[in-house]
Amino acid sequence: MYHVNYHQILEMEKFFRINLINSIVGFKSLNLLGTISENGESNLCPVSSAFHLGANPPLIGIVMRPERAHNDTLKNIKSTGFYTLNNVLPDWYKAAHQASASYPSGVSEFAACGFKEQYLDEFRAPFVSESTVKIGLEVEELMDVKLNGTTIVIGRVSQIITEDTLLEDDGTINHTKAKTMTVAGLDAYFLPQFLERLPYAKP
Amino acid sequence: MYHVNYHQILEMEKFFRINLINSIVGFKSLNLLGTISENGESNLCPVSSAFHLGANPPLIGIVMRPERAHNDTLKNIKSTGFYTLNNVLPDWYKAAHQASASYPSGVSEFAACGFKEQYLDEFRAPFVSESTVKIGLEVEELMDVKLNGTTIVIGRVSQIITEDTLLEDDGTINHTKAKTMTVAGLDAYFLPQFLERLPYAKP
Repeated sequence: MYHVNYHQILEMEKFFRINLINSIVGFKSLNLLGTISENGESNLCPVSSAFHLGANPPLIGIVMRPERAHNDTLKNIKSTGFYTLNNVLPDWYKAAHQASASYPSGVSEFAACGFKEQYLDEFRAPFVSESTVKIGLEVEELMDVKLNGTTIVIGRVSQIITEDTLLEDDGTINHTKAKTMTVAGLDAYFLPQFLERLPYAKP
Repeated sequence: MYHVNYHQILEMEKFFRINLINSIVGFKSLNLLGTISENGESNLCPVSSAFHLGANPPLIGIVMRPERAHNDTLKNIKSTGFYTLNNVLPDWYKAAHQASASYPSGVSEFAACGFKEQYLDEFRAPFVSESTVKIGLEVEELMDVKLNGTTIVIGRVSQIITEDTLLEDDGTINHTKAKTMTVAGLDAYFLPQFLERLPYAKP
């Protein structure tokens, strides 16, 4: 039996705590987040905090860490208002993980990690061409979390690009066919095996 | 190729849109959320919106739908300040799904769906005894999302209960050993297969 409380968590060695708390909620959505700066420099990083906020209007939230000099993503989202989320596939998840490295300013993770930028007219953020499920978002609200300096970015789903064959008749994305991956903690990569869909529950 | 924009999404048939938008971000964390009312009635429901907000202090966010007469969970969280998140296992995920049904007031989903309540002294919310990873949280902040009437509940990790054997040396929870499941959309259940852990990425 392993049992720790809040005060014991605060006293943990830093990286032990980071690994524990990052992995505690279970599997997380895994996407590559694409943006572009005002002067046209593209940026890409993996993000595992995307969460469903509502379907009507279609809203998705993501958590961004405190703004720093190197954090181009939040800066780009604030200046353009546009960003993309793109699923991660088994053939190239190592390249997606590599996009988390701190590249110097002026280096695009698209080029550095071998991804192709894909654009739509009048949508000012790059999609990942290699992904099978691509979401284009426009910022609706930025919520500052004073507790730890993070920002919850709420965006409305402005574009969805996928294949007809990946969509079930009822609108559900078939993530098995899409080959979507998931992550636990910071760096443990998984490919989910489908068990079943369950009917709407009634008492 | 399937490509829709914001306005086409708004015009979709309601349940098609719900299924599409709920499944678009990929796999989601899957937990049973346990609470208790002021007068001692326990409550349990599946939640797939839990997201990592920070490790120091240890913070987790969840999204709660607009408050309604039947929504005991948010009411309980507000009145007691305590709640739990408990992972879902292959042996009983159907019972976990069943806890999403709208049971009449006075019926506990613990009893109705066959789960055993587990309590810690001075922690006013029930854990799910059958889970292998149990998180106790205390409310830190409630953020109202005016865009759609939802509430983002931010809690600090006050208790972690698991098994020593499920913890890696570096603090990461081993969700393969824990048999943690994941969900896509509203009702598609998956068991992830581990591929590998990748080292910290450097340019």
